Amino acid sequence: MSGGVQEHTLPTLAIVGVGLLGASVALAARRRGVAGRVIGIDRDPQALEIGRRRGGLDDISTDLIQAAAADFVVFCTPVDQIADQILRLAPHCRSGTLLTDVGSTKKGIVAVASRLPEGVVFVGSHPLAGSEKQGPAHAHADLFQGRQVVVTPVSGTEERAVRCVCAFWEALGATCRRSTADEHDQALAITSHLPHIVASALAGMLPPHLVALTASGFRDTTRLAASGPDLWTAILLSNRDEVLGAVERYGEQLERFRKALEANDPEALRKLLAEGRAVRDSLTS
Amino acid sequence: MSGGVQEHTLPTLAIVGVGLLGASVALAARRRGVAGRVIGIDRDPQALEIGRRRGGLDDISTDLIQAAAADFVVFCTPVDQIADQILRLAPHCRSGTLLTDVGSTKKGIVAVASRLPEGVVFVGSHPLAGSEKQGPAHAHADLFQGRQVVVTPVSGTEERAVRCVCAFWEALGATCRRSTADEHDQALAITSHLPHIVASALAGMLPPHLVALTASGFRDTTRLAASGPDLWTAILLSNRDEVLGAVERYGEQLERFRKALEANDPEALRKLLAEGRAVRDSLTS
Repeated sequence: MSGGVQEHTLPTLAIVGVGLLGASVALAARRRGVAGRVIGIDRDPQALEIGRRRGGLDDISTDLIQAAAADFVVFCTPVDQIADQILRLAPHCRSGTLLTDVGSTKKGIVAVASRLPEGVVFVGSHPLAGSEKQGPAHAHADLFQGRQVVVTPVSGTEERAVRCVCAFWEALGATCRRSTADEHDQALAITSHLPHIVASALAGMLPPHLVALTASGFRDTTRLAASGPDLWTAILLSNRDEVLGAVERYGEQLERFRKALEANDPEALRKLLAEGRAVRDSLTS
Repeated sequence: MSGGVQEHTLPTLAIVGVGLLGASVALAARRRGVAGRVIGIDRDPQALEIGRRRGGLDDISTDLIQAAAADFVVFCTPVDQIADQILRLAPHCRSGTLLTDVGSTKKGIVAVASRLPEGVVFVGSHPLAGSEKQGPAHAHADLFQGRQVVVTPVSGTEERAVRCVCAFWEALGATCRRSTADEHDQALAITSHLPHIVASALAGMLPPHLVALTASGFRDTTRLAASGPDLWTAILLSNRDEVLGAVERYGEQLERFRKALEANDPEALRKLLAEGRAVRDSLTS
């Protein structure tokens, strides 16, 4: 998978967990000719059927072990299930099988890398792509186009395996950056996990009689609150220490605003708002 | 302005403050045939020139008093300037002139209603429309289409005047709801002013090296942080007590998340996230 388009073609790709991300990986891989055959695995037959109908999956199964037929397996299940599933599947895989995932936290997952049979390699991935909309019905082939994927090898991960995983995501339109799992989890606590809490807390305090007085500002700020509670409970708890630290630092930042208001201090307030704007303007869109 | 399209036509409309909102009111009024002639007033000649070039303004002036030539004046200046400008202009207006505004807070502004000359009437308005993008270059004729305008008469405001102001906004495509200024300011502290602080605090705590690891979630949650610091300093301080209360209640809601994380309590966390999602799902989009 290091050279031309031909070399990117995997004979068989398996997707474990056919939700929004899994079904999008399948669709993207089919549309871009990355895989000859795509197997979808999910415990929910309805999700599998949607995935097949939408065109991404050739074969479907509710049995995890069927993924052992693949050369490349992408785990797209909730973050608290991935490590267990990797450890269950790996003994059934033939030597040379490459495993990756899309989990939003990496420290707990990459720990499996050292517990796999000889010749079966896991390299963690986290595509910074998604939606508050869940399920394979919302999947689309361009979900990874122009997005970043953080790839998190551990010490001892073969360079060739890391390159293969990167080539896979790049073939789906993404760009890859490498990071340790620790650095990834520290960063995402602030860039992703904290915003979910911030959005959910804001949505949660809106009394019903004020719904009619919300406009696009409230809707944008709370969009992430529409995400799945089960999914996000698992993500937040799997990165608990980092998220706790981020929430505490956010509370301190909020306290600066509160103090500026309490002191009726326009200069302090303007400075805080200007700092926020400078950062916001530095983001791409 | 109570009947057919003909009756909606104002001979002369004046817009005081040709920023995003003022220039959009002007454009919308021209496109929808609401006004025969539109005068734009701003202290910034460049803003006036942009407003004229974009097609909304027939006459422009940097002199506030020129607005006295109009039958209907809409104040679109920053919230801390509106009351003073109304009191400066009103003595020059002829009897029958109707004044309104677009200020994001209403309690301080509607207090002018009792201090106007006989026959000059002010009715406060707040269109729940806008953008983090400022200035007349971003104006568009459909900014009010499908949006709500909160109209805030005081005790003693003539019913006829309230109806005229509502008819004006409805002619621009909005729907009107009436509220007291106090109720408006309490509500908007939560639905608009707090989200600005929440977004700005989140943007402000992002260290530069993590900019590259932000995705659409962080961008949406912080979109409001791109708003103008001067504008928002004035808005937040003009509704200080209500905003302080909202920030404190938000801090309590955030503390519930922090405690659930600290206790490593999936049930508590899931419940909080589910509450946020239920509210978010109740919003229109």
